[in-house]
Amino acid sequence: GFAKVDHSRANRQDFPEVIYCAGKTNQQIAEIFLNLFNHSQKNIIASRATKENYEAVLKLVPTALYDEAARIIYVQRDNTPVDDKRFILVLTAGTSDIPVAKEAGLTAQLMNNKVEYCFDVGVAGIHRLLARKDLIDKANVIIVAAGMEGALASVVGGLANKPVIAVPTSVGYGASFGGLSALLAMLNSCAAGVAVMNIDNGFGAGRLASMINHMR
Amino acid sequence: GFAKVDHSRANRQDFPEVIYCAGKTNQQIAEIFLNLFNHSQKNIIASRATKENYEAVLKLVPTALYDEAARIIYVQRDNTPVDDKRFILVLTAGTSDIPVAKEAGLTAQLMNNKVEYCFDVGVAGIHRLLARKDLIDKANVIIVAAGMEGALASVVGGLANKPVIAVPTSVGYGASFGGLSALLAMLNSCAAGVAVMNIDNGFGAGRLASMINHMR
Amino acid sequence: GFAKVDHSRANRQDFPEVIYCAGKTNQQIAEIFLNLFNHSQKNIIASRATKENYEAVLKLVPTALYDEAARIIYVQRDNTPVDDKRFILVLTAGTSDIPVAKEAGLTAQLMNNKVEYCFDVGVAGIHRLLARKDLIDKANVIIVAAGMEGALASVVGGLANKPVIAVPTSVGYGASFGGLSALLAMLNSCAAGVAVMNIDNGFGAGRLASMINHMR
Amino acid sequence: GFAKVDHSRANRQDFPEVIYCAGKTNQQIAEIFLNLFNHSQKNIIASRATKENYEAVLKLVPTALYDEAARIIYVQRDNTPVDDKRFILVLTAGTSDIPVAKEAGLTAQLMNNKVEYCFDVGVAGIHRLLARKDLIDKANVIIVAAGMEGALASVVGGLANKPVIAVPTSVGYGASFGGLSALLAMLNSCAAGVAVMNIDNGFGAGRLASMINHMR
Amino acid sequence: GFAKVDHSRANRQDFPEVIYCAGKTNQQIAEIFLNLFNHSQKNIIASRATKENYEAVLKLVPTALYDEAARIIYVQRDNTPVDDKRFILVLTAGTSDIPVAKEAGLTAQLMNNKVEYCFDVGVAGIHRLLARKDLIDKANVIIVAAGMEGALASVVGGLANKPVIAVPTSVGYGASFGGLSALLAMLNSCAAGVAVMNIDNGFGAGRLASMINHMR
Amino acid sequence: GFAKVDHSRANRQDFPEVIYCAGKTNQQIAEIFLNLFNHSQKNIIASRATKENYEAVLKLVPTALYDEAARIIYVQRDNTPVDDKRFILVLTAGTSDIPVAKEAGLTAQLMNNKVEYCFDVGVAGIHRLLARKDLIDKANVIIVAAGMEGALASVVGGLANKPVIAVPTSVGYGASFGGLSALLAMLNSCAAGVAVMNIDNGFGAGRLASMINHMR
Amino acid sequence: GFAKVDHSRANRQDFPEVIYCAGKTNQQIAEIFLNLFNHSQKNIIASRATKENYEAVLKLVPTALYDEAARIIYVQRDNTPVDDKRFILVLTAGTSDIPVAKEAGLTAQLMNNKVEYCFDVGVAGIHRLLARKDLIDKANVIIVAAGMEGALASVVGGLANKPVIAVPTSVGYGASFGGLSALLAMLNSCAAGVAVMNIDNGFGAGRLASMINHMR
Amino acid sequence: GFAKVDHSRANRQDFPEVIYCAGKTNQQIAEIFLNLFNHSQKNIIASRATKENYEAVLKLVPTALYDEAARIIYVQRDNTPVDDKRFILVLTAGTSDIPVAKEAGLTAQLMNNKVEYCFDVGVAGIHRLLARKDLIDKANVIIVAAGMEGALASVVGGLANKPVIAVPTSVGYGASFGGLSALLAMLNSCAAGVAVMNIDNGFGAGRLASMINHMR
Ligand SMILES: Nc1ncnc2c1ncn2[C@@H]1O[C@H](COP(=O)(O)O)[C@@H](O)[C@H]1O
Ligand SMILES: Nc1ncnc2c1ncn2[C@@H]1O[C@H](COP(=O)(O)O)[C@@H](O)[C@H]1O
Ligand SMILES: Nc1ncnc2c1ncn2[C@@H]1O[C@H](COP(=O)(O)O)[C@@H](O)[C@H]1O
Ligand SMILES: Nc1ncnc2c1ncn2[C@@H]1O[C@H](COP(=O)(O)O)[C@@H](O)[C@H]1O
Ligand SMILES: [Mg+2]
Ligand SMILES: [Mg+2]
Ligand SMILES: [Mg+2]
Ligand SMILES: [Mg+2]
Ligand SMILES: [Mg+2]
Ligand SMILES: [Mg+2]
Ligand SMILES: [Mg+2]
Ligand SMILES: [Mg+2]
Repeated sequence: GFAKVDHSRANRQDFPEVIYCAGKTNQQIAEIFLNLFNHSQKNIIASRATKENYEAVLKLVPTALYDEAARIIYVQRDNTPVDDKRFILVLTAGTSDIPVAKEAGLTAQLMNNKVEYCFDVGVAGIHRLLARKDLIDKANVIIVAAGMEGALASVVGGLANKPVIAVPTSVGYGASFGGLSALLAMLNSCAAGVAVMNIDNGFGAGRLASMINHMR
Repeated sequence: GFAKVDHSRANRQDFPEVIYCAGKTNQQIAEIFLNLFNHSQKNIIASRATKENYEAVLKLVPTALYDEAARIIYVQRDNTPVDDKRFILVLTAGTSDIPVAKEAGLTAQLMNNKVEYCFDVGVAGIHRLLARKDLIDKANVIIVAAGMEGALASVVGGLANKPVIAVPTSVGYGASFGGLSALLAMLNSCAAGVAVMNIDNGFGAGRLASMINHMR
Repeated sequence: GFAKVDHSRANRQDFPEVIYCAGKTNQQIAEIFLNLFNHSQKNIIASRATKENYEAVLKLVPTALYDEAARIIYVQRDNTPVDDKRFILVLTAGTSDIPVAKEAGLTAQLMNNKVEYCFDVGVAGIHRLLARKDLIDKANVIIVAAGMEGALASVVGGLANKPVIAVPTSVGYGASFGGLSALLAMLNSCAAGVAVMNIDNGFGAGRLASMINHMR
Repeated sequence: GFAKVDHSRANRQDFPEVIYCAGKTNQQIAEIFLNLFNHSQKNIIASRATKENYEAVLKLVPTALYDEAARIIYVQRDNTPVDDKRFILVLTAGTSDIPVAKEAGLTAQLMNNKVEYCFDVGVAGIHRLLARKDLIDKANVIIVAAGMEGALASVVGGLANKPVIAVPTSVGYGASFGGLSALLAMLNSCAAGVAVMNIDNGFGAGRLASMINHMR
Repeated sequence: GFAKVDHSRANRQDFPEVIYCAGKTNQQIAEIFLNLFNHSQKNIIASRATKENYEAVLKLVPTALYDEAARIIYVQRDNTPVDDKRFILVLTAGTSDIPVAKEAGLTAQLMNNKVEYCFDVGVAGIHRLLARKDLIDKANVIIVAAGMEGALASVVGGLANKPVIAVPTSVGYGASFGGLSALLAMLNSCAAGVAVMNIDNGFGAGRLASMINHMR
Repeated sequence: GFAKVDHSRANRQDFPEVIYCAGKTNQQIAEIFLNLFNHSQKNIIASRATKENYEAVLKLVPTALYDEAARIIYVQRDNTPVDDKRFILVLTAGTSDIPVAKEAGLTAQLMNNKVEYCFDVGVAGIHRLLARKDLIDKANVIIVAAGMEGALASVVGGLANKPVIAVPTSVGYGASFGGLSALLAMLNSCAAGVAVMNIDNGFGAGRLASMINHMR
Repeated sequence: GFAKVDHSRANRQDFPEVIYCAGKTNQQIAEIFLNLFNHSQKNIIASRATKENYEAVLKLVPTALYDEAARIIYVQRDNTPVDDKRFILVLTAGTSDIPVAKEAGLTAQLMNNKVEYCFDVGVAGIHRLLARKDLIDKANVIIVAAGMEGALASVVGGLANKPVIAVPTSVGYGASFGGLSALLAMLNSCAAGVAVMNIDNGFGAGRLASMINHMR
Repeated sequence: GFAKVDHSRANRQDFPEVIYCAGKTNQQIAEIFLNLFNHSQKNIIASRATKENYEAVLKLVPTALYDEAARIIYVQRDNTPVDDKRFILVLTAGTSDIPVAKEAGLTAQLMNNKVEYCFDVGVAGIHRLLARKDLIDKANVIIVAAGMEGALASVVGGLANKPVIAVPTSVGYGASFGGLSALLAMLNSCAAGVAVMNIDNGFGAGRLASMINHMR
């Protein structure tokens, strides 16, 4: 077969393999999705999915859902109760960063976490962020999605006393070089210990935040 | 004065500001160190420090110590008991990555964490890593320091069910471009949710690992 | 004429010139293909070919075939017996790397080699690779196609005692920079002596593997 | 001769040509300095100067002074009264950025501007900046020197209602790539209209700030 | 809601937040535009806007206008008298740079400035620029938009005794790397104190020019 | 108007301004073309032109011609006799480099030079080049257009005793980075004194070759 | 201990682990060398070694030798007879590439291969290479070390009917970017199937050539 | 031996091989120099030479001279009369570019050309260049050495009606990236047909200028 689905992952890492759709045919995606669906009782995720990918999956797995903003196909069937007192806060610098934020947030929710969003609090008007200091203080883990110069990650990293996960986004133009400017900024953050993800990698941020949020 | 020491940091983030020595004069470093030493009862850290920096500090703060491998000047006086059951595991791919690993490990220790090291378990001889699967399973958080192609981070990220923090090192030559090859590899890890640090940023890794390790 | 077909190549290097289709018109491709077809009795290959290219070739060379996944137009007419005991093993890290793997594999087959494939054995679930250690041990030459961080090449290079040819693929996004991350990782492999190809250059990998596989 | 000193510049642009010392011999610097000194009554500046350069100049121009931190050799003899109500504010993110800030500040002072400094107010502890909101409000033009991720420029650009000039510094390591991370961040600032200078170009910032500060 | 419109910006910085349309949906743009339109009496700007974006805005704000060359949606209702004696001069090196120049010019006009244009005066025929020395002398602030090697900024910077704002454009091919060649050239200008903007960032140039032009 | 056509260029540099079509509207191109056509008796060239551009020009200048391969719109009316004994030789490494070669060749022809072509003599089969040593010896100036690794320029530069102009082309994929590999190779040629042009800049090569070919 | 020497490597891959000296202390190198020396009867290699490293090794392993040009410390004690009919040919473009060639050659010799050298046959004078066509025809595997534009690899790859291993060297300046120009050229070679190594990686080339040369 | 001196080059290309000293030992340089000295009656050049290199050469070739600014060791013994009416003009933007200019000029002189210099006429004070329009008009070929933004090449290219050879220099700092900014600027020159050399490659410029200057 074309894929060696990693069935031990659901046991080894508490969550089944997540399908990365880019570069796969509709049929490959649908077959892997069904395969994963049949081998565990957990939620299933396919990331970077198009509507067309979804239609192919739907034929084999009728309970599959699609979140267009997050570009995620998923099945939600795990009823493990979620700890409401520990939430992951997902911040964005601008409105254009929302899709990445939603990829992160939905991933974390499907891994049994409570998620709160706070969009458009970038540093060009920093009072917007300071006004939500309460959220920063109450959150258990924070994800910051920001493009352009990505400065929000450093400011949040300096305010918070909890893990901050920075996701550079490809929002910007010219010398942003497809997200490189935000990526470099976040890697060089003067706030100590900010965790950096690949450009636009909301999925990875959601997964890391979930692992941290489940620590006891 | 030349510095606005961030005295609220010890309260805001549970640990005083850490001095980044590169680009500062001996005198600046010593004065800031003393200032921090006098304003809290916590441990004090100055990173990227030379022996010369240390001698200047020693004149003002006689209890200061120096770890040459980690390039850290520090004062250890915080006696808060450390939770021995939760340790941070620091892995390196090769022997040349040890200095970065020690910067990470000592930082975490000074922030009241138990640290275990396991050096030289890179993927060119993967049985060395697989032989220490027990350590990976017992650790609470894992830091991976690797240069060259940085593949160790992905392999560990695929084996572990806990947060993995990847620190690319500048070990290598030619097309490693001072650590860029390992950095890009870690950012693109196929293992989901690996947290990436700046090249050679052991300090950041130690700080993040400590924050995660203290979560309850 | 527009092309100086290198007719001595079939003698000089045991295989006729291979047409690189990108940047050529349908007519140029078809005429060069016919020209090569008429000047030797060997198999003929045109790489990076579209379906449209194929239709143009088909009009002049009715026995031409097309492999869509491998993007190769070819004529298979060389009946030299293939040595079944020496096979080239083509591994991929993920499902999305399959097209590059097939370009490599078909090239090697058309140069009279036995080829075995093993897809989707990337390091995020390394047990999948270790489970096929037998294939690695039996193969005569190994080709590894991997995108993202390309770590599979280093792990295979460390396990195998035979030439390993690494082909970085453009699978990935963000800081993979179109395959650059995998390319740099492979060039910096800590496993000694891995041969690196250009990004997505399955053709070159197949050709090199064939040359090595025919050594006696 | 080796230099065509631009003597019309003092008239054309209100200030004589400034000598860029890097790559010039001691003798070349001294002769150009003397030449400029003799052709106008204005202040004279040589930037990027070493102590050795200064000693050579001193032999020909005994009234020359040297500011080691700013790496500037200068003659101060212009007594035009300075407008004390309009000052240029020079901010730095950290202590290590001070040399660049001083190159900017001294340049502006020698061009007849009042300059105020405020060091070490980077975003890792943003209260330090907010505490000096009064200075930001009173300044006529603001220069921000910051390395690492250069986020301070965006935060100040969002707070201030006056021209902000951002100078990325080469402070940092690893993926800061000698100031590139801060440069890209500043070019992509979400705060509209931030003026960006070359890495470590305090001189240019001082000159631009002076031109703006003299507008009526 | 999806956006935290920065309503204090009109007071804080004399002009309302400007909407960056790229990456936003038609509906998001229209709603933010209406929101900004309702919260102040100032002119409103949305940059990087397509015709489609405009149609969506028009439904909610019937007085909105669209400048296709400048890619700006705007409302012009602020009748504050403009100081006709102080104008901003916008120069371009070639005809292909005009769109960026118009983004700059229209931005400045909507911020209550008089703007003059002078297109196609690049250095390949430098007499064209020298012939307009009068304009350079009369202007209060100068914006230079140039692609390819961006040399015009340096020549103007050497001729003018007033702030020069350089906007590299993405005009060019091959080793211009989408505007990088012009950007680097402008950052390294031998003319002292040239202010540099991001590639194609006419908006930022217009905003900075306006701030400087309003100084008294 | 939108353009300041450089009418003195035909006198100053023996040939009128050449229109660079990319980034200009059809109408702009047509008007500038007509303008140039009316102001001299020389040949007229518009480069990087699409068929659509041509149709617009044709309406205003009915004698205009279009060479699709070279992407050039031109008027040929200069009857100055061409020196047949001095020809410019245009070589390509492969068939895919022909468009760039034709841009160079047609440019030189329109500037009154005799041009000879020799395509597809790349170094993978170096006998093809050596077989045309006679052409290399007879030519007065040589242009080499090559993509991929651009090695042909160095080999020709080592064989010829006359100016060699190297044009890197964007032919290739992966780590050719749109022509960068060939560009760097040509800049670093071990054959002394090779003149390098921008990627795909056939026009510049033709113009330089023409200037050299007309020297007496 | 600081190192987990991979003792199974001598069995797994027919040759013990090779010590990469850069970034290790003298004592670490000496101890690992002794450890390897004691655990097998094979030859031992430490690469990238300084004279100082050698002196430290010599104290623990008195039979160790040092090749200064190749920067290799080694012990030669394996008396397995070498197959004299199969030799590896090591070519260089210039005299400055010799150190890398010797690192490759000595590595291959210590792995029981016959090695022939042919220096300074770069393409600026291609007759030098053509004059040694006999060597190319007789060799079993070819290594090409070249800096600057690295064109030699493509020319040899086009002439030879056997595996060609290309090692870019850091010989060059300016836009050679420390070997990047040669590296890119080799990756984009128009000669099919050239195996590429990291910049200056003579060791890897020697190891790969040895593996291929031992195939039967 | 270590070098295959290309003795046919003096005949093939009218001038003997030029020794590139970087990366060669003193002894290698001296022996190659002597070898070249003995095999022809032409002038001999060794470029990128240190004083130490010179001393080694002097022992074997007592008539050798050394130009420290140009970093060239040479023997001048060719008495072919030089055509005084055709001179090569070497311009520099600043004083710091003089060493590169001298490498170019001395190379051309040793190849029997008359050379004129005009230093420090960069575009920051363009009247200095315009004042020497006579020199530009009288020269037969022009070399422009410039660092930083390299704008001088474009301005000269627009003024002159003869071949212009642009040599980017590594003069500059920060985002000049060792000469990259000037290199890119020159490759993208809006003045048609400028020939570009590698960064700091005065030698190549001198050689190309000489070839062109000798055309009849
Ligand atoms: N063309 C533009 N280029 C750069 N920044 C812009 C542009 N247009 C608007 N902005 C800024 O982008 C920010 C808006 O980001 P967002 O919240 O995503 O809309 C605002 O602070 C604007 O000042
Ligand atoms: N959006 C994503 N970004 C990065 N990695 C992903 C993403 N989605 C899935 N993955 C990982 O990609 C790997 C799948 O590769 P493949 O075998 O090609 O499907 C899995 O190990 C996933 O953990
Ligand atoms: N997919 C491919 N990747 C790299 N090189 C190729 C490929 N296919 C063919 N080639 C080589 O490209 C050269 C042909 O170039 P051209 O003359 O432009 O057709 C031949 O030497 C082939 O060996
Ligand atoms: N300064 C220089 N820059 C570039 N190439 C040079 C220089 N000096 C000599 N060369 C060339 O470098 C080659 C010599 O390389 P090698 O055999 O290593 O001495 C010759 O072909 C020369 O033409
Ligand atoms: Mg916003
Ligand atoms: Mg090791
Ligand atoms: Mg998979
Ligand atoms: Mg500080
Ligand atoms: Mg024009
Ligand atoms: Mg061909
Ligand atoms: Mg040589
Ligand atoms: Mg000067």
